[in-house]
Amino acid sequence: MKAKVIVTPKKTVLDPQGNAVRDAMRHLGMPEVRNVRIGKYLEIDLDGKDVDLEKRLDGLCRDLLSNPVIEEYSIERLSE
Amino acid sequence: MKAKVIVTPKKTVLDPQGNAVRDAMRHLGMPEVRNVRIGKYLEIDLDGKDVDLEKRLDGLCRDLLSNPVIEEYSIERLSE
Repeated sequence: MKAKVIVTPKKTVLDPQGNAVRDAMRHLGMPEVRNVRIGKYLEIDLDGKDVDLEKRLDGLCRDLLSNPVIEEYSIERLSE
Repeated sequence: MKAKVIVTPKKTVLDPQGNAVRDAMRHLGMPEVRNVRIGKYLEIDLDGKDVDLEKRLDGLCRDLLSNPVIEEYSIERLSE
């Protein structure tokens, strides 16, 4: 099984890294950029594919891969 | 227009950050994890939606948002 995890800062949380990239893009010829938010992207290869595995993956996303106070995550199953 | 950009290390490039996360996940109750690769995720809000804009966005992804020597990027258009 292959899973794709995206961790992004919550909407209500400031994203200084995103703002820096937004300003850089505006200065480098894209004044149309309104907003940029930056997160993490993880591609995880797993052996097996049982339901329990997905539940444990969800738990690890919450406990290890993200900080639930300021970030939210989404898991997408890519393939068997 | 809203665009989603994902920047990942090339397959042939070592990903020590991904390896650290893989080992941590194995130790924290998921020995099934075979491999983890970590990249950046960017959500970009743009005013306008012409073709030229997408071309310039592609240029900036290459020049600013990624390092083409060791990374590859994909752009996905999310909405108007």
